[in-house]
Amino acid sequence: MDLWFTELYENASGYTIKIKETLFSGKSRYQKLDILQTEQLGKMMVLDGLIMLTEANEFSYHEMIAHVPMTAHPNPERVLIIGGGDGGTAREVLKHDCVKECVMVEIDELVIEKSKEFFPQIASAFDSPKLNLLVQDGFKYIEDNKNAFDVVIIDSTDPIGPAEPLFSEHFYKNVNACLKSDGLMSAQSESPYLYNKIIRQMYTDMGKAFPVVKMYTGYVPFYPTGMWSFAFASKKYYPYSKPRIDMIDKIDNLQYFNKEIYSTCFALPNFVRKILDENDK
Amino acid sequence: MDLWFTELYENASGYTIKIKETLFSGKSRYQKLDILQTEQLGKMMVLDGLIMLTEANEFSYHEMIAHVPMTAHPNPERVLIIGGGDGGTAREVLKHDCVKECVMVEIDELVIEKSKEFFPQIASAFDSPKLNLLVQDGFKYIEDNKNAFDVVIIDSTDPIGPAEPLFSEHFYKNVNACLKSDGLMSAQSESPYLYNKIIRQMYTDMGKAFPVVKMYTGYVPFYPTGMWSFAFASKKYYPYSKPRIDMIDKIDNLQYFNKEIYSTCFALPNFVRKILDENDK
Repeated sequence: MDLWFTELYENASGYTIKIKETLFSGKSRYQKLDILQTEQLGKMMVLDGLIMLTEANEFSYHEMIAHVPMTAHPNPERVLIIGGGDGGTAREVLKHDCVKECVMVEIDELVIEKSKEFFPQIASAFDSPKLNLLVQDGFKYIEDNKNAFDVVIIDSTDPIGPAEPLFSEHFYKNVNACLKSDGLMSAQSESPYLYNKIIRQMYTDMGKAFPVVKMYTGYVPFYPTGMWSFAFASKKYYPYSKPRIDMIDKIDNLQYFNKEIYSTCFALPNFVRKILDENDK
Repeated sequence: MDLWFTELYENASGYTIKIKETLFSGKSRYQKLDILQTEQLGKMMVLDGLIMLTEANEFSYHEMIAHVPMTAHPNPERVLIIGGGDGGTAREVLKHDCVKECVMVEIDELVIEKSKEFFPQIASAFDSPKLNLLVQDGFKYIEDNKNAFDVVIIDSTDPIGPAEPLFSEHFYKNVNACLKSDGLMSAQSESPYLYNKIIRQMYTDMGKAFPVVKMYTGYVPFYPTGMWSFAFASKKYYPYSKPRIDMIDKIDNLQYFNKEIYSTCFALPNFVRKILDENDK
């Protein structure tokens, strides 16, 4: 029997991948979780029918969402991750020795438990004494904590489903208040080739909450179109203000990120500048 | 009826896209050509079952394969394109006013004819008086012409099929001889996420023919993984030796390429450096 998993984009195109077997299939209060053994890319995690990661290529997404803000901040000691239940983003954040505490707030315990069971090398940070893992609503946590973090990373699913409140002006203003006076944030922000309306709205909302808002991109082959964008928003620092560029060579086991990637990832093609209403620089 | 076209990568993953109708289906001496009307991305050209381009997103591939070498050379007057039968690469080359002649050598007349018929905005350069279009074997043409071109662009299909001879040390040495003493070339070089063995061989072969060999990349959503690489090989100039950076703002109708893209596209993620045996820079 040939078993194929297919994820469709706007019901008009999609990605398909050959499956050896289903390792887990279950439902939490929030979403449906499937873990599949693929033939080509190791194990794969799927939430509500959308691929979250493959074992073979998860590195680019996790390194880019974590190390760009961690490099841009001159001394990130307290870091907050919203979402990221698989643990990959926390794993990358905790590669920075300067971090004293990483708080991770994931709403769905099932994702954490099954990541520990099936993706131990992604979930490796769950054992760290520096990690404070909270199973609760990230939106609420941000609202309740003011002036508390140097870096906030929004590692959420798409704006349809449990992550919907994480894509709003109101939320970004709360993130601003949750950050210290020189804090900054990153967030996954979808593919510019497919979701230009979502992106334009998201960056407009973010611009109402932060004085500095920039987009950067990376190659994430299991997400729609392979081009993935991330938002960088900051209260004070620009990406090139005081980056800890020289520390990058000391980060363990980087498969994607390096000094050159940091220095180049904010360059945007013309069609993306147009989505963001940026003029030629 | 729901009609879907699917292209598989190593029979283990793939891209699928919804089709409204088949506009053309035919066979030349060299390959099978299909032109399909997609629901999401305009018309699509398929050769031997592999997607060559979609109307909506062809710009990134054509702009990146053409404008990077055209920018790197201080005065590209005579340009040779091998392959590129759809005309998109010639269209981009001829946006540079300094070009006196662009010779394009495509082996398959059917691709040229059907591109004119179904993709007039891609095939627009076929009417240019500066274009010298030859329907013949590019390998042979390169062998017969010495010291003749400033820039050579290898816009070929994959190394399996009619383009196979275009991926060899022997061929790259002929390209070197076909170039003037300060000439340089570009070539499509597959996706680093999937084809690391092909890439390693290709760059090793090219390194035996040229003193300067670099990889650059771009986001091409209809090619496997969305991350596409291009080889830059040169007899004299490095990408940053004497680039015509200031001329970039004068190129008409660029949807992808700009100054920042030129300055950043040679930055490579660590896993790609590893394929090329490059150390951290």
